[in-house]
Amino acid sequence: MNEQFPSVLLEKAVSEFAKLPGIGRKTAMRLVLHLLRQDLGAVEAFAGAMTTLKREAKFCKVCHNISDTETCRICSNPQRDASTVCVVENIRDVMAVEATQQFRGLYHVLGGVISPIDGIGPGDLQIESLVERVKAGGVKEVILALSTTMEGDSTNFYIYRKLAPTGVRLSVIARGIAVGDELEYADEVTLGRSIVNRTPFNGSF
Amino acid sequence: MNEQFPSVLLEKAVSEFAKLPGIGRKTAMRLVLHLLRQDLGAVEAFAGAMTTLKREAKFCKVCHNISDTETCRICSNPQRDASTVCVVENIRDVMAVEATQQFRGLYHVLGGVISPIDGIGPGDLQIESLVERVKAGGVKEVILALSTTMEGDSTNFYIYRKLAPTGVRLSVIARGIAVGDELEYADEVTLGRSIVNRTPFNGSF
Repeated sequence: MNEQFPSVLLEKAVSEFAKLPGIGRKTAMRLVLHLLRQDLGAVEAFAGAMTTLKREAKFCKVCHNISDTETCRICSNPQRDASTVCVVENIRDVMAVEATQQFRGLYHVLGGVISPIDGIGPGDLQIESLVERVKAGGVKEVILALSTTMEGDSTNFYIYRKLAPTGVRLSVIARGIAVGDELEYADEVTLGRSIVNRTPFNGSF
Repeated sequence: MNEQFPSVLLEKAVSEFAKLPGIGRKTAMRLVLHLLRQDLGAVEAFAGAMTTLKREAKFCKVCHNISDTETCRICSNPQRDASTVCVVENIRDVMAVEATQQFRGLYHVLGGVISPIDGIGPGDLQIESLVERVKAGGVKEVILALSTTMEGDSTNFYIYRKLAPTGVRLSVIARGIAVGDELEYADEVTLGRSIVNRTPFNGSF
């Protein structure tokens, strides 16, 4: 036991919290002491929500998004356009695209991007299942919506090579100046691409 | 269920995390997805550490610090000087003072400071038990180590009025320029007090 900690139980709880990414020991201590001030029911609700999620959450067998059922709400929704599949890295990206309300197709969650430095290869991602999904037919367009980083671009290219033989239409999300940004603060690569990939303008957006 | 969340279980876990102070919904999501990537044993260890702490942690009957036993390790240590009691706001402050290794007396944890704006009065704090502890005899000096804020000062003054009749020696921790600070950036109240409360200097610290 660390000499400074007045309680082994406290130290254990703080250590568990400090394992979370971005949570240092001081923050962990603050969070644990906050929980300790709540009543037992509240602490049990907190702890129970985590273990229940881990025990019972499923991953959609079609798109691999987290789901309470075998096939997720999006994939099983007949109102969605099953011919368009948006490829994203993770669950948060599905939520981010959904929040825009600009996409009515389905998703395919890769579970990350190819990153040799982190030991993540194509086999660790849901790329093979994407190829099978396209080969099974019914998908007309695959939209690649990965991070605009080196890893994202490598993954885009890897998927392009895998999907090109199937003849499916492939597109990537537009890169350009973020809405609300000033040109003088944009990096030159982004600004350059935004000029090359300029879109026709008819007086309104 | 929030339309954006692909899973009720996920949403519940995120909501529980987002109740913690300083944790917004985006951070909560990131932490929950991290836990979801761990194996079940790790998630159960995390959840179990919180509920076990809440169920089994005790508060020392002498100093009110968190403890695994009826009387905490510090209060039951015969090597500590029981005649000096350091009054602090909370458990973290005990750990902060212990970390300095400059204090070998005992503590008294108030559980906060008097703060009318937050609805915290003297009756919500362990002040009465401090007075009884001093009246019981054996305590020669009470060191007030509260925050140097308006609330801390009000609490210092309240304790002073309560303890003055007992004749116990009272002191407050020194206020002055923090070690490593440059004078030009110090606020004038602190700098002024550091001059008024200057200490004799014999060539070394």
